[in-house]
Amino acid sequence: MAKFKLDEIDHQILDMLIENTRVPFTDIAKKLLISAGTVHVRVKKMEDAGIIKGSSLTLDYKKLGYSFIAYVGVFLKNTSQTKFVLERINEISNVTVAHITTGKFNIFCKIRAKNTEHAKDIIFKLDDIEGIYRTETMISLEESINDKKRLMHSIFSEL
Amino acid sequence: MAKFKLDEIDHQILDMLIENTRVPFTDIAKKLLISAGTVHVRVKKMEDAGIIKGSSLTLDYKKLGYSFIAYVGVFLKNTSQTKFVLERINEISNVTVAHITTGKFNIFCKIRAKNTEHAKDIIFKLDDIEGIYRTETMISLEESINDKKRLMHSIFSEL
Amino acid sequence: MAKFKLDEIDHQILDMLIENTRVPFTDIAKKLLISAGTVHVRVKKMEDAGIIKGSSLTLDYKKLGYSFIAYVGVFLKNTSQTKFVLERINEISNVTVAHITTGKFNIFCKIRAKNTEHAKDIIFKLDDIEGIYRTETMISLEESINDKKRLMHSIFSEL
Amino acid sequence: MAKFKLDEIDHQILDMLIENTRVPFTDIAKKLLISAGTVHVRVKKMEDAGIIKGSSLTLDYKKLGYSFIAYVGVFLKNTSQTKFVLERINEISNVTVAHITTGKFNIFCKIRAKNTEHAKDIIFKLDDIEGIYRTETMISLEESINDKKRLMHSIFSEL
Amino acid sequence: MAKFKLDEIDHQILDMLIENTRVPFTDIAKKLLISAGTVHVRVKKMEDAGIIKGSSLTLDYKKLGYSFIAYVGVFLKNTSQTKFVLERINEISNVTVAHITTGKFNIFCKIRAKNTEHAKDIIFKLDDIEGIYRTETMISLEESINDKKRLMHSIFSEL
Amino acid sequence: MAKFKLDEIDHQILDMLIENTRVPFTDIAKKLLISAGTVHVRVKKMEDAGIIKGSSLTLDYKKLGYSFIAYVGVFLKNTSQTKFVLERINEISNVTVAHITTGKFNIFCKIRAKNTEHAKDIIFKLDDIEGIYRTETMISLEESINDKKRLMHSIFSEL
Amino acid sequence: MAKFKLDEIDHQILDMLIENTRVPFTDIAKKLLISAGTVHVRVKKMEDAGIIKGSSLTLDYKKLGYSFIAYVGVFLKNTSQTKFVLERINEISNVTVAHITTGKFNIFCKIRAKNTEHAKDIIFKLDDIEGIYRTETMISLEESINDKKRLMHSIFSEL
Amino acid sequence: MAKFKLDEIDHQILDMLIENTRVPFTDIAKKLLISAGTVHVRVKKMEDAGIIKGSSLTLDYKKLGYSFIAYVGVFLKNTSQTKFVLERINEISNVTVAHITTGKFNIFCKIRAKNTEHAKDIIFKLDDIEGIYRTETMISLEESINDKKRLMHSIFSEL
Repeated sequence: MAKFKLDEIDHQILDMLIENTRVPFTDIAKKLLISAGTVHVRVKKMEDAGIIKGSSLTLDYKKLGYSFIAYVGVFLKNTSQTKFVLERINEISNVTVAHITTGKFNIFCKIRAKNTEHAKDIIFKLDDIEGIYRTETMISLEESINDKKRLMHSIFSEL
Repeated sequence: MAKFKLDEIDHQILDMLIENTRVPFTDIAKKLLISAGTVHVRVKKMEDAGIIKGSSLTLDYKKLGYSFIAYVGVFLKNTSQTKFVLERINEISNVTVAHITTGKFNIFCKIRAKNTEHAKDIIFKLDDIEGIYRTETMISLEESINDKKRLMHSIFSEL
Repeated sequence: MAKFKLDEIDHQILDMLIENTRVPFTDIAKKLLISAGTVHVRVKKMEDAGIIKGSSLTLDYKKLGYSFIAYVGVFLKNTSQTKFVLERINEISNVTVAHITTGKFNIFCKIRAKNTEHAKDIIFKLDDIEGIYRTETMISLEESINDKKRLMHSIFSEL
Repeated sequence: MAKFKLDEIDHQILDMLIENTRVPFTDIAKKLLISAGTVHVRVKKMEDAGIIKGSSLTLDYKKLGYSFIAYVGVFLKNTSQTKFVLERINEISNVTVAHITTGKFNIFCKIRAKNTEHAKDIIFKLDDIEGIYRTETMISLEESINDKKRLMHSIFSEL
Repeated sequence: MAKFKLDEIDHQILDMLIENTRVPFTDIAKKLLISAGTVHVRVKKMEDAGIIKGSSLTLDYKKLGYSFIAYVGVFLKNTSQTKFVLERINEISNVTVAHITTGKFNIFCKIRAKNTEHAKDIIFKLDDIEGIYRTETMISLEESINDKKRLMHSIFSEL
Repeated sequence: MAKFKLDEIDHQILDMLIENTRVPFTDIAKKLLISAGTVHVRVKKMEDAGIIKGSSLTLDYKKLGYSFIAYVGVFLKNTSQTKFVLERINEISNVTVAHITTGKFNIFCKIRAKNTEHAKDIIFKLDDIEGIYRTETMISLEESINDKKRLMHSIFSEL
Repeated sequence: MAKFKLDEIDHQILDMLIENTRVPFTDIAKKLLISAGTVHVRVKKMEDAGIIKGSSLTLDYKKLGYSFIAYVGVFLKNTSQTKFVLERINEISNVTVAHITTGKFNIFCKIRAKNTEHAKDIIFKLDDIEGIYRTETMISLEESINDKKRLMHSIFSEL
Repeated sequence: MAKFKLDEIDHQILDMLIENTRVPFTDIAKKLLISAGTVHVRVKKMEDAGIIKGSSLTLDYKKLGYSFIAYVGVFLKNTSQTKFVLERINEISNVTVAHITTGKFNIFCKIRAKNTEHAKDIIFKLDDIEGIYRTETMISLEESINDKKRLMHSIFSEL
């Protein structure tokens, strides 16, 4: 559990970084009426505490020709192979997320592909992994929400 | 489809930004033996083209007390209500992803919660949305892969 | 059941028409060493008997931009609405086949669309039909076999 | 995607061929007030472009004693065997359609048989293919729609 | 529970009646070296005790044109309607067996029909019963065992 | 299909036999105002034609301590073993009915047992048959309809 | 989380009470070489801390004629009714356990009954609760493990 | 079945013990206006008859850090291994209940764990048992009812 205590200033810094990770510290400082050094120290502190692990680009996958998203449920022959299979899955870069899950699937993955045919190739790569005995695919017709920012703001406002 | 042509320099800039969105342009410039102005122009161009849509922080949800992840499949009473329901779902900040899907579910969501009890509250909020007639939940026992960087590098190396 | 008796000549005519419905009767006549009039009379007879109901073009849907195929299982609110719903489905030209089926679905359709987004629109049209209460979609990753000619030859060789 | 441009005359020719592939070119010519040679040239051009791949007879399967239609979902032991299994399925002429699909089945087939007993024999042939581990059958109680003509007209009116 | 005590003679009488309900009592008497009156008294006693409730003909349904057997699982809108629905089902003579069951179905029926089309009509009659909200059908490809005699012999040999 | 023609007298004889297979021919004769010999000849004719295959007792299983009924769906490892497995099932006298079915099960059985524990033993016997890989059981809470007489009367009134 | 600290003596007292809640404190005292007063004080302390909530008899349900156990999955019309429905379920004393669950069911219950018929009555009572729209029952063929003692010992040995 | 006859006094004794197994016999005696010796004799008699098998503590698992409950359905490779697998399951103390069941699962277990991660470890232990081929987990979001006392009172009031 989070033992690290964040104060109001930390929250405001985080709120600005959540919206734009590339915002210069001087801009944050000016907005919050503190020195840029203070911003730097506090961000550093949150990074050291491991709360901020990094940042990532938000790309327009459609514009890049990757508009096909699917969820693939994986059934394993034997769950003692879970670790081994996850390492193999990790070699397929089109798998952006994978979870060990309860329910009917052993592993549940999200994949991004160019189109139906490309998706077929990726699913076949999964199916061919030693230890995977079946997969079941659910195709996204529209990614209606993909937004962690709302959650981040709400988490920090609670802390 | 992506008609926008990226050259080798664009790729190298993107490769650095993917790893760390906060890397200063001067660092990129030094590494690639070009001017910081060139970096700026090219990033601007990719933003204008809509390829780069923004950036987001990567937080350590466990450290923040949000270690519970679940996937929730939503059955609608009538798909003519899809848009309306998605707007209601969008008001629940713990839902970070939502897709309209093929297969047994009409909408498929990812939620982040603090624990079982918190998850129950969120699922109940979903269940109470007018137009949702049932939900089915699959709980993540471990988020083994959550990494878009591999895919991003691979997309840009292909373009 | 088929009471109509076909003889060897009829079979040979059918075998040629199955391969190419546009083959001129004079070509058939030459090949089978009979008169074109005989071919004409026999084809006419099979049309009158209702065995040959017509002919259809075989298009390359991929070349025409229609490479997306899905099967959609339809659940009705009440099967007394079956006839009514099928009439509504019949108004959607992208539904090329529809069956009343046993098993979990009441009606089972095949649709052809341009891509994922187009498929979503068609599925939504189905979902909006009064009397349909849910649909479940299975997407084709590859149409590996679509060939009635083998069956036709085998039926006629049996008769 | 379809890069081939069809003009109004092409559409009208196609519209007539869709209704009856055996319509003589002279009839088309007369109707469209063009020469039969022009019809011939344009059809040839569409054949060469691969848009028209051929033609097929429409038979009355009921009259021929083949009134039993079923859809068979196939589960593979291992999807690396997909190609091999499809070649075996292709040897069974009663399978008129087969798709590699998402969802619970690996391969999804349509079969035509004479009656329940005949269907059993065909399903058993599928079950006996090395690499197929289970099949699930859904029986058609009525083929309510089987009509590609509506789609063809609508595709060409869009181009 | 069965409190009625059957002795060895009763068993032997039952064993003969199980094989052929029309066997004359004089034949049974001769075989068992007892009087026909004794046979009569004992059968009467078993009928009075309610163990023997009657007898039924075994017909060859195939010869009679009723070769189509299906099991139909019924989902009720509300199980408080079970009794009412069973009375409606009882009006359809093609339903020869109906059970209230655990598992996914509320009521589970066996139907005998002439063919696919006839089965469709019966299933539609079921579907139209007020209170039934869905049915799911499983078709018999072959009735491999239908034999209560083995069980009857084994029950009586145990008593 | 039934080519054997039954006349009105045959129907009336059958109607009486359906109600009580042990009704003496003299009673039938008296009721129908024909000779007992005629009844005999006609029943013999229907037996020879294979329409009447025999007769069976109707027991009160509850009174005999066999009040537990279950339906067991059987999954085979490989359907090429269907015949072999059915022979093994046939050795278990508590299985009174078995069908090869479409849908999720390969074989579908009806069993009669004394109680839950007895049912467990029978299901375990099925599970232990070489070639059976899984079974799924659905328990009857009440046998509400078990009546072939209605169907028999209706079949004969149609012929 | 458990902040209450138990020492070695507490564990040993608990270990004895787990095996037999009726063991006299003087016996515990003798065994652990402490005074009965100390036992009393410590048990009191654990009761006050809420760790020990009470005790329950272990009955032999089979001997009492309640040998039938079933699990019943409940589907609600609307989860906003969860609380209301649970109150109604709580009025049925044969339901010994009820959980709000993830997965396909909204509520999952355990019931104890005398036999199949009694179980049917209980299930029908559940089905008749306003707000419950369907139930699915899974019957226990044998309660192979029902033992919390192993877990209790293991929990206390860990603390 | 319960042949043992309990009289009114026995019921009243049981009613008090059900509420609190540790209630001193002298208290029961005072309340019921009988001697403590009589209470002792009657309880002894019920223990000897096997009706009372023992007693168990009711702990507050949440306070002890064990708030995570899940139901795990187990699929066996072959039910002939049922006994062997149950012995292995019995070695996992977090499994407090296990049943052999009808329906889709072969064995159905209840587990108590500290949290999601702990549950994963327990499920993995189950999955690694030789003879278990798959498990499916359903997580409890809230244990709403866990009360055998109501049933016990109702059983004894009936006897």
